[in-house]
Amino acid sequence: MFSTPLTITIFGFGAFGKLAAALLAPHAHVSVFDKSCDARQAASELGFSIIRDVSDVHADVVVLAVPAQSLEQCLLDIAPHLREGQLVIDVCSIKEEPARLMRSHLPAHVEILASHPMFGPQSAMKGTADSQIVLCPIRGTRWRRLAAFLRQRLGFGIIVTTPEEHDRQTARSQGLTHLLAHAFATLGEHPRICTRSSELMSEAIALVAHDAPEVSDAIVLGNRHLAPLRESLISALSSFGETEVNKHSPAQTDGQPYEA
Amino acid sequence: MFSTPLTITIFGFGAFGKLAAALLAPHAHVSVFDKSCDARQAASELGFSIIRDVSDVHADVVVLAVPAQSLEQCLLDIAPHLREGQLVIDVCSIKEEPARLMRSHLPAHVEILASHPMFGPQSAMKGTADSQIVLCPIRGTRWRRLAAFLRQRLGFGIIVTTPEEHDRQTARSQGLTHLLAHAFATLGEHPRICTRSSELMSEAIALVAHDAPEVSDAIVLGNRHLAPLRESLISALSSFGETEVNKHSPAQTDGQPYEA
Repeated sequence: MFSTPLTITIFGFGAFGKLAAALLAPHAHVSVFDKSCDARQAASELGFSIIRDVSDVHADVVVLAVPAQSLEQCLLDIAPHLREGQLVIDVCSIKEEPARLMRSHLPAHVEILASHPMFGPQSAMKGTADSQIVLCPIRGTRWRRLAAFLRQRLGFGIIVTTPEEHDRQTARSQGLTHLLAHAFATLGEHPRICTRSSELMSEAIALVAHDAPEVSDAIVLGNRHLAPLRESLISALSSFGETEVNKHSPAQTDGQPYEA
Repeated sequence: MFSTPLTITIFGFGAFGKLAAALLAPHAHVSVFDKSCDARQAASELGFSIIRDVSDVHADVVVLAVPAQSLEQCLLDIAPHLREGQLVIDVCSIKEEPARLMRSHLPAHVEILASHPMFGPQSAMKGTADSQIVLCPIRGTRWRRLAAFLRQRLGFGIIVTTPEEHDRQTARSQGLTHLLAHAFATLGEHPRICTRSSELMSEAIALVAHDAPEVSDAIVLGNRHLAPLRESLISALSSFGETEVNKHSPAQTDGQPYEA
């Protein structure tokens, strides 16, 4: 049903598009589409075929590696040119809204898979072993063939779920991490006097601190499940000490003040 | 000036007192004082000499391994019994208030060192190699001999600073970590769908999540430098999106919506 080798066109040769192209190139025929001349030149210098006209995208799999904020325009651009049976995949860090946009803008003869690779250029620098990709099948069945390819050829762990469940879980994990990275950036450098736990927290923040602002915006503002978590976090940060002061005051442990 | 081997009495055989006793025992004669019968029994079973009367503390070095909230009562109890030249050390996670209490309650013939071992029972499980101890000399010069002992015999890194500088730096590192651990505890389990950065953040939080409430209270509420950082953090968490939405809206990148 797919060509051998698999043909893949990556739309958008930004930070993630580059990473995806590099990971896929040994196992598939990868071509690149990007409106920017600089990006096309960079892709060409790395040996990728360049597609100059959106109507020339004939690959089995079309990976939309564009910011979440640009996805709708991208879909409107490519929709009239897609052929029967092509599989279109997004790689946005949120899934409910991209899934809705793809379902609504892509023609019925196109198959759709919403995906979220749980790694980025920063974390992939240490390799993608043990890395996971979340797949949310939206339309068609060819995604199963791609899932097998990603698992067997590239060694990725595959998690299949719904866009809603993805966004609910990543609000708690990725969403809060990005929100905190943003907040910590306002507090100055990590100091010399520190504990192992604060070092780990700094490492966590450093991994996402250099993500493009568009990425953080999508993750924090585009995930409807994050707002209540943000409220709870702020509330818990604000309330620390209001009750604890009374609970553990020295007065109440007076009898045995320094026992085990 | 000190005995050979060094004699050390540890006041308080709680989580940290136990760790300190275990680390010091191969290199010094360690005795333990604790008001609790259970704690004395535990210390005795581990082979430590037990001191039953506070007036019998004759060691060169007296380590007060008691919660910050109990330090003042402990100082009042031992102050009348201390001998000329003994070196008294606290190990609280904050330093300004303990330093003030020791200076004000301990007799002039006693030397004083405020200290903060930058590890705990959780992080020490992976070993104390590369671990650091912050020393804030308060009175006398014998602390230099102890610093050499900790560095040469136990392999610790030694940072010498003032109580104020310690508290200023640890508010940003340890203080915020404890505050966040408390806040995250209200948000439920870390989900299966997660990124490397959120895993690191969970590891950071797990390291301090099981600390005694008294420890977190001292670190968060006993450090005057943390309050403004907490306000800044909450403010940054609240404001995310208020300006970013406008900065990175798709409308402004319309011309080249999915380029690199």
